[in-house]
Amino acid sequence: MRRWNGWGDDAEHNPLGEDALAFLKERVGETRPNRDASLEQALAQVPASRLPQSTVFGTDARLRMLHARGQSFPDWIAMKSGRFGPVADGVALPSSHDEAAEALAEAQRLGALVIPYGGGTSVAGHLDVPAGDRPVVNISLERMNRLVDVDAECQLARIGAGTPGPMVEAQLARYGFLLGHFPQSYEYSTVGGWVVTRSSGQQSYRYGRIEQMFAAGRLATPRGELRVGGHPASSAGPDLREAVLGSEGRFGLLTDVTVRVRPLPQQESFHSVFFPSWDAGLQAVRAIVQADVPLSMLRMSNEVETETQLRLAGHPEMIKWLQRYLGVRGIGPGQCMLVFGVTGTLAEARRMRRDALAIAKRHRGVHVGKTIGKGWAKNRFRGPYLRNSLWEAGYSADTVETAINWNRATPMMRAIEQAAHDVLGAQGERVHAFTHLSHVYRQGCSIYSTLVFRSTGTPEADYERWQKLKTRLSETIVAQGGTISHQHGVGRDHAPYLPAEKGELGMDLIRAMAREFDPAGIMNPGKLFA
Amino acid sequence: MRRWNGWGDDAEHNPLGEDALAFLKERVGETRPNRDASLEQALAQVPASRLPQSTVFGTDARLRMLHARGQSFPDWIAMKSGRFGPVADGVALPSSHDEAAEALAEAQRLGALVIPYGGGTSVAGHLDVPAGDRPVVNISLERMNRLVDVDAECQLARIGAGTPGPMVEAQLARYGFLLGHFPQSYEYSTVGGWVVTRSSGQQSYRYGRIEQMFAAGRLATPRGELRVGGHPASSAGPDLREAVLGSEGRFGLLTDVTVRVRPLPQQESFHSVFFPSWDAGLQAVRAIVQADVPLSMLRMSNEVETETQLRLAGHPEMIKWLQRYLGVRGIGPGQCMLVFGVTGTLAEARRMRRDALAIAKRHRGVHVGKTIGKGWAKNRFRGPYLRNSLWEAGYSADTVETAINWNRATPMMRAIEQAAHDVLGAQGERVHAFTHLSHVYRQGCSIYSTLVFRSTGTPEADYERWQKLKTRLSETIVAQGGTISHQHGVGRDHAPYLPAEKGELGMDLIRAMAREFDPAGIMNPGKLFA
Repeated sequence: MRRWNGWGDDAEHNPLGEDALAFLKERVGETRPNRDASLEQALAQVPASRLPQSTVFGTDARLRMLHARGQSFPDWIAMKSGRFGPVADGVALPSSHDEAAEALAEAQRLGALVIPYGGGTSVAGHLDVPAGDRPVVNISLERMNRLVDVDAECQLARIGAGTPGPMVEAQLARYGFLLGHFPQSYEYSTVGGWVVTRSSGQQSYRYGRIEQMFAAGRLATPRGELRVGGHPASSAGPDLREAVLGSEGRFGLLTDVTVRVRPLPQQESFHSVFFPSWDAGLQAVRAIVQADVPLSMLRMSNEVETETQLRLAGHPEMIKWLQRYLGVRGIGPGQCMLVFGVTGTLAEARRMRRDALAIAKRHRGVHVGKTIGKGWAKNRFRGPYLRNSLWEAGYSADTVETAINWNRATPMMRAIEQAAHDVLGAQGERVHAFTHLSHVYRQGCSIYSTLVFRSTGTPEADYERWQKLKTRLSETIVAQGGTISHQHGVGRDHAPYLPAEKGELGMDLIRAMAREFDPAGIMNPGKLFA
Repeated sequence: MRRWNGWGDDAEHNPLGEDALAFLKERVGETRPNRDASLEQALAQVPASRLPQSTVFGTDARLRMLHARGQSFPDWIAMKSGRFGPVADGVALPSSHDEAAEALAEAQRLGALVIPYGGGTSVAGHLDVPAGDRPVVNISLERMNRLVDVDAECQLARIGAGTPGPMVEAQLARYGFLLGHFPQSYEYSTVGGWVVTRSSGQQSYRYGRIEQMFAAGRLATPRGELRVGGHPASSAGPDLREAVLGSEGRFGLLTDVTVRVRPLPQQESFHSVFFPSWDAGLQAVRAIVQADVPLSMLRMSNEVETETQLRLAGHPEMIKWLQRYLGVRGIGPGQCMLVFGVTGTLAEARRMRRDALAIAKRHRGVHVGKTIGKGWAKNRFRGPYLRNSLWEAGYSADTVETAINWNRATPMMRAIEQAAHDVLGAQGERVHAFTHLSHVYRQGCSIYSTLVFRSTGTPEADYERWQKLKTRLSETIVAQGGTISHQHGVGRDHAPYLPAEKGELGMDLIRAMAREFDPAGIMNPGKLFA
C-alpha cells in the first residue's frame, strides 16, 4: 500500500547498509533515527470539515489527510510529525470531465477554494492547503486513469489526466505504443500533473519534454470549458496549449490529455563512460548533443555524485576492480561518470553508441560497458525510496534543480554546492551535496543537486534548517541566471523567485491569464504566484 | 530595386513562356494582360498625413505608401490599381530597442494606432491600415538588421528583429553557423516577423519551426519592456516566449530576437521520387516521418501540381523521357512527385537517403535522382515571382494553407480544391487548383493549395471574386478540422475563423493578454482578433 507519510509502496523497505551508514557518518556526522508520528496520531489532529453534507465531496478525515500533502520537504516534516496543518474540507473524486466540472461548480456554490490533485508527488508545495476562513476542497483526478482512445495512424493517445506513469505505459503497450515520459516520480505522478507543471522525463532527449508530447487537452475552468490544441502545428495566434502547460491548477482542472506517442522501441541499453574531470565530461556531453547524436538520455555526475554512487552501489569488490582499470586508463580522483541511453532499432542503436563513444573518447572518456548503466536503469525510479531510508537513519534529504546555458553550467553547479555548505556550516553542520547534469539541449542542460544533512530531531528546527537552505539555494540559482525550476515546477516554494525570470510585466500577464478563467481567484491560490 | 506594387526585385522579370500560356489557356481560359496604375498615379491618391511635424515619424507620401501594404490578394489589388486606401500618417524607422520604444511612446502621446512593420511580406492582411479618425503610424524595424552577438558555445545568436532572411544567414555564415529558416518569403521576411506570426520554413523538418528556434526576445509594449526566454528549458510556469510567438504586433514591438543556431551543414542535396498515386505517396511520407528518418524536408505534390510543375519546367524533351521511364516502372497518369532534402555530414546524408528511399520503394515510389530536386532548390524562393508573371498575363493567383492530422489530409486536400472549383464555377469561370503537402510531423502535415484564375479587369470585381473564394475556402478548412493557418498567420483575413479553433474562452484569453500590455488597444487593431 502507498505510504501515507513518505514515498512509495510500504512493501519496499530497504534500510541503509553498514557501508552506506559509515559513508554518511564520515561525510555528515552521526545521527539518531528519526521517530515518526503514527497514523492515528496524525488523524487525531485533522480538523473537522467545514462543508455541509454533499454527494460531491467526501469529508472523511483520512481521505482528506491523504490528499493534503505532496513530497516537498515541508510536506515531509508535516507527514512525519503527524502535524498536517490545514487539510481540505472535502475531496471530490470525479470519474469524467463532466463530473470534474460539476465538482468545480459545486465548489463555486460553496464558496470554496479548489486544489486540483493528481498523483500527490509535487516537491514544490503545489498541494498546500491555505489556512483561513474559506473552506477548501481537493478535486482529485485519480479515478480518471484510463486510456480513452488510440489513433495509430496519427500516433495520438487520449488519456485521463489522473493516469499515473506505469498505467500510461501499460495501457499504451497493448497497442504497441510508448509515450516515453519517465520522471523520477513516474510511479505515482500523472499525465495531467506532468502537463500543468511542464514536467520533463529522464529520456526527454529522445522523447521530448511534456510540451512536445502534449497535443491537446480539455480544461474545466470556473468560467466553463476550454479545449486547446489538436493540430500538428499552427501559426494561428498564440498557442493555447502553452496556457495550460505550467498553469499549475490556477486556470482550471485539466481533465483529459491527448499525447503524441510512438512505437515501442526495438531495443534499449544504457552505457557508462568515465571522464578524468567534470570539465572533460561536460565538453563531451555538449559535443554529443550539438552533433545531434540521437541518444535517449545523458546524465553526468560530478565528482561527489560519482563517488557517492559507487560507494552506495553495494559491490565494493567490483568497484575496486573498476578503479584499477580506470587507473590504468589514466582516470583517478576527480573522475566523473556519464550514463547514456541508446534506444531504437538495432542498427540505430549501434550507430549512436559508436558516435557517442567516439566523441567521448576525444574528451578522454573511457567506456566501461553496460553494467553500471543497467544498474541505473533498474533503479531509475528508486531515488525517492532512498529518502525513506535516509530519514529512518536520521538524515534529511532534499534536491534543487535548474537549467542553464552551457557556458554557465559549471559555475552554477559549484555555486549551488558551495551555498549548501555555507548554510549548513553556519549552523555547525555538514552537508553531503552532489550534482549531476541531465536533460541536455543544444543550448544548455539541467543541473540537479542532492543535499543530505542531519535531521534535528524536531519538526520546527528541521523546517527552519530547510527554510534557510532553500532560500539561499533559490537565491543562488537566480543570481547565477538559471530558471527557478527545470522540472519540478513553481508551486508555493518557488513562487517568490518567479518574478526574477518573468519580469514585472510577465507576472502581470500570468496573473491576467489566471483572472480571465478564474475571476474570483478560487483555483489553487498561492501557487505559481502569490 | 524592390517592386512597389508586386513581389521582389524589379530586375527579375520573367514573362510566361508560350508553353505555360498555352497550358493556362487550356485550364483556365484566355485572358487579356492586366494593366497597372503607375507609381505617380498611386502616389497622387495618398492622403495627406494628419501628424504634426515630428523627428520620430517621417511623413513623406512615398515612404508611407511603401509601408501600407503586404502581399495578400487585397494588397495586390490595392497596389496594382494604385488605390492604396488608408495609408499610415507617419513611419518611424528606429535603429535600436530604445528608439523603437521611444517611437511607441510618441505614438501614445499622439493618440495614434501603431502597425509594426517587418519585411512587408504578410499574405493575411497584417499591415492593413484602419480607416477612421485616429492617426495611424507604422513602426518599421527594417533598420534593425544586424547580427548583434553570437555565442558559439551555446549556439545562440542575437539578431535585430528587422533582419531579412538572406542577411540573417549571410551574417551567421561568417561564424560558421546557420539558422535554417527558409519560408518562401525568405528574401524579404524578417526574423521578428517570423516570430510574431509563428512562421515555418521549408526545412522545418530538420531545423524546427520558429517556435523551436526562438530562444529569447525583447518586446517594447505600451506598458514597458518585456523580456522573455533565455533558458534552455524551464518548468517555471507558462512559457512567455509563447505569448510573443503569434502575437502579430498586438502585444508590442519585438525588437530583438535570440535564436538557436547550428553549424553550417557539410552537404545538402534534394532528391525526387514519383509515386503512382497521392495515396501511395502520402503513406510513404507518413512512414518516413514516423520512422524518424532525419531528412531536412519533404514536399509531395498532388496530381495536378505534379503535372503543372512538369509542364512549366520548360524542358519538354526531358519530361518526355522522364515519362517514358516512369511508364516502364509502372507510373502513369495520377502520378505524384515527392521532393525530399538530405542535409548533414556525408555519412548521415548517405544513410538518410538510403532509409527514405527504402521506405518510398515499399510504397511503389520510383527514385528519379537529383535533377528535379536541384531545380526545386534553385527556385525555392521564386514562387512569389511567378505571381508577377501570371498577373501580367491576366491571371490572378492566391494560396491557402492549413495543417491537419494524417487521417484527414486527403479529404482536406480534395475539399479545398473542390470548393475552389465550386466558387469559380458558379461565376462561369474555371480555376487551376493544385496542392502539396509539406511541413511534416508525426501527427500530420501541412496542406498548401495554389489557385490560378482569370483576373476580371477591374479591382472591384477582382476583390469580389477573391472574397467569395477566400470565404468558402476558409470555411472549408474550418469544417474539415484544420487550423486556419499553418504558416501564414492570422492577420485580418483569417481573424473571423480563429474562434473556431480557439473557442470562446480561448479568444477571451487572447484578448485579455493583449489588454494587459496594451490597455488602450492601440497595437495593430483588427489583426488576430476584431
